[in-house]
Amino acid sequence: MTYSVRELAREIGVDVLGNGDAEITHVADLDESQQGSLSFAASNQYLNKLKKTKATAVIVPEVLVAHCNATALVSENPYLSFARAAKLLHPEDEQIAGIHSSAVIHDDCEIADNVYIGPNVVISAKCTIGSDCHIGPGTIITAPSFIGASSRLIARVSIVGPVIMGERVIIHPGAVIASDGFGLANDNGVWEKIPQLGRVVLGDDVEVGANTTIDRGALKDTIIEQGAKLDNQIQIAHNVIIGAHTAIAGCTGIAGSTVIGKHCAIGAAAGIQGHIKIADGVQVSGMAAIRKSITEPGLYSSGTTAQDNKSWLRNAARFKDLDTLFKRVNDIMKRLERMDKGK
Amino acid sequence: MTYSVRELAREIGVDVLGNGDAEITHVADLDESQQGSLSFAASNQYLNKLKKTKATAVIVPEVLVAHCNATALVSENPYLSFARAAKLLHPEDEQIAGIHSSAVIHDDCEIADNVYIGPNVVISAKCTIGSDCHIGPGTIITAPSFIGASSRLIARVSIVGPVIMGERVIIHPGAVIASDGFGLANDNGVWEKIPQLGRVVLGDDVEVGANTTIDRGALKDTIIEQGAKLDNQIQIAHNVIIGAHTAIAGCTGIAGSTVIGKHCAIGAAAGIQGHIKIADGVQVSGMAAIRKSITEPGLYSSGTTAQDNKSWLRNAARFKDLDTLFKRVNDIMKRLERMDKGK
Amino acid sequence: MTYSVRELAREIGVDVLGNGDAEITHVADLDESQQGSLSFAASNQYLNKLKKTKATAVIVPEVLVAHCNATALVSENPYLSFARAAKLLHPEDEQIAGIHSSAVIHDDCEIADNVYIGPNVVISAKCTIGSDCHIGPGTIITAPSFIGASSRLIARVSIVGPVIMGERVIIHPGAVIASDGFGLANDNGVWEKIPQLGRVVLGDDVEVGANTTIDRGALKDTIIEQGAKLDNQIQIAHNVIIGAHTAIAGCTGIAGSTVIGKHCAIGAAAGIQGHIKIADGVQVSGMAAIRKSITEPGLYSSGTTAQDNKSWLRNAARFKDLDTLFKRVNDIMKRLERMDKGK
Repeated sequence: MTYSVRELAREIGVDVLGNGDAEITHVADLDESQQGSLSFAASNQYLNKLKKTKATAVIVPEVLVAHCNATALVSENPYLSFARAAKLLHPEDEQIAGIHSSAVIHDDCEIADNVYIGPNVVISAKCTIGSDCHIGPGTIITAPSFIGASSRLIARVSIVGPVIMGERVIIHPGAVIASDGFGLANDNGVWEKIPQLGRVVLGDDVEVGANTTIDRGALKDTIIEQGAKLDNQIQIAHNVIIGAHTAIAGCTGIAGSTVIGKHCAIGAAAGIQGHIKIADGVQVSGMAAIRKSITEPGLYSSGTTAQDNKSWLRNAARFKDLDTLFKRVNDIMKRLERMDKGK
Repeated sequence: MTYSVRELAREIGVDVLGNGDAEITHVADLDESQQGSLSFAASNQYLNKLKKTKATAVIVPEVLVAHCNATALVSENPYLSFARAAKLLHPEDEQIAGIHSSAVIHDDCEIADNVYIGPNVVISAKCTIGSDCHIGPGTIITAPSFIGASSRLIARVSIVGPVIMGERVIIHPGAVIASDGFGLANDNGVWEKIPQLGRVVLGDDVEVGANTTIDRGALKDTIIEQGAKLDNQIQIAHNVIIGAHTAIAGCTGIAGSTVIGKHCAIGAAAGIQGHIKIADGVQVSGMAAIRKSITEPGLYSSGTTAQDNKSWLRNAARFKDLDTLFKRVNDIMKRLERMDKGK
Repeated sequence: MTYSVRELAREIGVDVLGNGDAEITHVADLDESQQGSLSFAASNQYLNKLKKTKATAVIVPEVLVAHCNATALVSENPYLSFARAAKLLHPEDEQIAGIHSSAVIHDDCEIADNVYIGPNVVISAKCTIGSDCHIGPGTIITAPSFIGASSRLIARVSIVGPVIMGERVIIHPGAVIASDGFGLANDNGVWEKIPQLGRVVLGDDVEVGANTTIDRGALKDTIIEQGAKLDNQIQIAHNVIIGAHTAIAGCTGIAGSTVIGKHCAIGAAAGIQGHIKIADGVQVSGMAAIRKSITEPGLYSSGTTAQDNKSWLRNAARFKDLDTLFKRVNDIMKRLERMDKGK
């Protein structure tokens, strides 16, 4: 796709400073740009690269205009404007509707118009696939489920319990949706499986990363509200609720029945205990362990920072006596008090 | 399925207090119950919901009978009784035996009676599938393996090395069993792969969660003993042994050659070092790092608890000097001793 | 395969002390060895087992020769020599070339000589499969990609964006390569997806573990350099670069745009922050959180060590006031200084 800078600026709703007639053919990083490139600089951090870039045009905030030798597209949110320009310049291939001959689809399914169903897809009885859906190769749906319009199951997605999905949902390969939750009752040391009977409900515009797992609810449903975004290798246990527009980075695990608020940002490889509640607008650092409910928005962290192993060994060994140290220091302070008074 | 309260109580071996003729049609949470619902209350924590429930009957311990307005089913282990009732009220669909026409099964395999093999299953030479097994769609078995009777490979399971499986094993989608362990020898900075020649042995009634990986042994076998339950996204490295009836929650990783005892409960996202030994009956908290053998039963934990990021930054920075602090306090104490003596 | 000790020693380049005519048929652990077994003892740790072994021959370092009752194969690097002997004694089945009739391969692909393509493989347009490749059952390649000669995609690998792969690459089941990175721009609380346009580049001899995910770059590429080895369930975010001959153990996550040096060894379940740089030759302990760049080689660690839960609760609670404690101790020291001066 080729756009003039002016056309592109109009499409994404930003102003042009410079040559509006120049042609843009693609997006690129500032330091890999060349003629025809559109790039972006979101903040002062990009200043060095901005000065040296060979891009034809750069999306910049007002404050960086003075440092931009290329044609500037001035945006209050350069990253967002860039996302939109990238979509225009690099549109996805138009979907060719059709059902591959190797797909195994039960007769008792409703498949709407303009749907693509790839090779080796398996869909069992009582499923509905909305219009314009893309059901990529190797995807398996073995329980009555509803896939909302324009959803894209990229490839090799497994849906093995009842799922209700909104529109424009994206699910990446290897994701497993609505497998049994980890529900066990103990009979004198022997674990007995508790039937998992709930569903998974995914709101509109939810995205689920590669190899992420979302268990079906035990009795109630597991719910991911609209606009929530899950990265790769996340584990969502049964009965969890993720609030709307919450983003969760890769490798994070959320234990059963926990409720995460709306507009949260959960860092990578965090661990969130079961049966707790996280307020709206909470941010969690990567690798943090959240063991209690959080009632106020803000950024929360845990853990220690890395150091050379020898020093760490010494410090980590001391951690085991930390409470003792606090008591010792308290004793010292009392002793000093007494000494002061004794004087 | 519909049961009278009396029939259900007899089946699960509990006593009825109230209307034994009432009809139960399904299980539900206390707060989503209605006429025909069976619910449960395991402890005082459920008291508020118990008082307000609309369930027809509730499984309760003796101590909660007085607070139960619905018909009470009195159980010493309400959760277990509920599990059993749920199985009766919501039985799994009866399996329709048969091999789908798209399955690719080598001639040199033994398939017992009443087996279901779904679409796109691949089974290579020298495999045995026991009676009543369910081999779900997309499952791939590419090495000589034995699947015990009544086992259920839900869908898209990969078995790529030799596996010996007991009866009634359940494996969820995306699980990879008997792939190569991470065995590498270093030749002047270049890694050379060490052939992985062992098997994976899964005992009776083992359950393996979605996207969990269990590597084959290097020389000996990787062993999961009977009744052990593994949640989603667990990584079991080569030569690990998991004792009977041990339950491991999601995202936990267990490094090579480690031996976990029987009846352990390992929390979510824990990390267990290689070449160590964990005693029977050990419990490990979520996100704990276990770096040394544990010889006594009990609950073990590590890490720090979350706090607001600003405070955490200050405290985490201090952790690096913790050993120094201990020494400083020791010095202070000695100084005070000297001062005391000096007096 | 059967070798005389002498032949085997010649093949792997080590000296024999003892009966060179003895026949070796297989490799085994020292304590499971019997007649015909070749075993190894890498260090003093193996001493007890070495003395009792029934192996016909054992690969040992010079210092253990005196303790070896079996025929000794003397090696400077016993583990490496053992790896090579194991490959000779247990060669992989020779590949039978051919394309299974159920594979769905686009006409516009180049498939070189002696390639195996298994059942239910899907390969879309503009892919090149090099000679001697093994494309295992259920593998899906849906974007223009280049698979270098002698590479082995064991089974059920998903390649869903453009990938350039060197020779002799091994990818284990469930791995997802070149799915979209987690790129989101925020528009007043609503996340908007940023097109992911980069590739994944895997160098020669790279190995990728089961259920590991490697995202495609946003604009630039995600790069795993030659000889790097990734274990199971690792998450590599977009634009990460992993240096040559670096080994990463299972469950580790590496956030976006981070650059890891060459010859690093990253422990299991470690977490590495985005946009940082790790020097060549760095080692990271299991479960360590690396939040800042590391500029010097060495072993780095973080976290605390496990203890019984009661003690841990007390100590973890104190961690939240660690900075306060340091300040308190400083105050005490100043007070003591003043007292000293006052004297």
